[in-house]
Amino acid sequence: MTSIELERLRVVLVNTRNPLNIGASARAMSNFGVSALRVVNPYEPGFREAKSAVGAAALLKNAQQYDSVAEAVADCDLVIATTAARRRNLQHQVRRLEDGVRAIRRRLKSSRVAILFGSEKSGLSNEEMSHADWLMRIPTSQQNISMNLGQAVAVCLYEIIRDSRAPSEAQKLARATAGDIERITAMLLDALYASGYVGRRRVADIDARMRRLVKRLHVPARDTVLWFGILHQIVWKLRKGGAPEDETEK
Amino acid sequence: MTSIELERLRVVLVNTRNPLNIGASARAMSNFGVSALRVVNPYEPGFREAKSAVGAAALLKNAQQYDSVAEAVADCDLVIATTAARRRNLQHQVRRLEDGVRAIRRRLKSSRVAILFGSEKSGLSNEEMSHADWLMRIPTSQQNISMNLGQAVAVCLYEIIRDSRAPSEAQKLARATAGDIERITAMLLDALYASGYVGRRRVADIDARMRRLVKRLHVPARDTVLWFGILHQIVWKLRKGGAPEDETEK
Repeated sequence: MTSIELERLRVVLVNTRNPLNIGASARAMSNFGVSALRVVNPYEPGFREAKSAVGAAALLKNAQQYDSVAEAVADCDLVIATTAARRRNLQHQVRRLEDGVRAIRRRLKSSRVAILFGSEKSGLSNEEMSHADWLMRIPTSQQNISMNLGQAVAVCLYEIIRDSRAPSEAQKLARATAGDIERITAMLLDALYASGYVGRRRVADIDARMRRLVKRLHVPARDTVLWFGILHQIVWKLRKGGAPEDETEK
Repeated sequence: MTSIELERLRVVLVNTRNPLNIGASARAMSNFGVSALRVVNPYEPGFREAKSAVGAAALLKNAQQYDSVAEAVADCDLVIATTAARRRNLQHQVRRLEDGVRAIRRRLKSSRVAILFGSEKSGLSNEEMSHADWLMRIPTSQQNISMNLGQAVAVCLYEIIRDSRAPSEAQKLARATAGDIERITAMLLDALYASGYVGRRRVADIDARMRRLVKRLHVPARDTVLWFGILHQIVWKLRKGGAPEDETEK
């Protein structure tokens, strides 16, 4: 989504009771780059001072206030009403968020789109919904379909700005070279001999076994110097600090 | 996502200050079918009674409490830390939510995965992050990267449960048949004559023009009977209620 497209989106909060929810919705809008907030008959006239609008105080101050849904959506070409119910009735089709947003994104390329969110208590009334072209539901679990208002706004706006083609950012760390692996293996072997680990267990083919063990660690290239230092210090202390363990046991 | 896979997911809230945010996170978990909530050193011991856990009181009551991140994630095979920053430092890779969740979904097929959320004030500390395999960020606007905790939990869990192949639910309403369109056109023409609209304007080719006008309306099949009734009543009243308009003008 471009910022010009997001400017065409209006978030319309209808009959919201708790001003903190208006502030939280403003915060979510600000998080996702949407700025046009409209409120219809908010329960608390002082909602513009809601402290929950962290980082979005200006957005909240600029919210436009209306007495009816009709006025709030008058300049919009597409009007969507959100609902928790899977099937409201036969008056409107209900589309799942992922599907509905595909249509919203297409329309935002050239048109203004309003998304209506109803009151925390009862959602949107049938009269309020009648202004919508269709309904949209967030795919919640049947066990608890009722979402917090600010969370519902956040999830809807996230779906609008999300990028399904976001490239994989998995950075495989560059691995240590074979030469560095060999050096770490050699130092580890030194430590095994110096500590008496090898002498006690008498493992055959110890060099190859340790090399494979170290290779399986997938040591990142940037960590090799750190490992050299650690092993060097351990070997030095083992050699300096008294007889190896297997000898003290004798 | 299957419910068995979602059972393998742990939401870990670290050093949360406001118990209402723990409750709101529990509500979002419940909305998206995730149940394993873990809290590390919550600021308020009474968080289990948070009223914000609407529909999720049992989930909140069953939250497991820990003294350290290490204990909270000990049984998990993959640990993710959430962060608002795009680039924290070179200690960890940061993956965008859409990308990170692809990996999380793969791992949930067979392994337990923890997602860490830090305190509202300062996020996760470097020590807390060091328990994570990698970091994940929600793609927020640069203007306001700091999300409300419950909203961040909601958006992350939504991304996990969302279905990119959710089929289009756009139901094209069945259209009225040509016969019904013809009948509506005829009734409309009756109304135009009875009201004097046609007589006054003397439009040539009026039948075909009105038929095209009605066809452009895309009248749904289920609404035809309603329109028949409306037009019938209008024509009846026009004919009964005095002389047609064009005659009164003479």
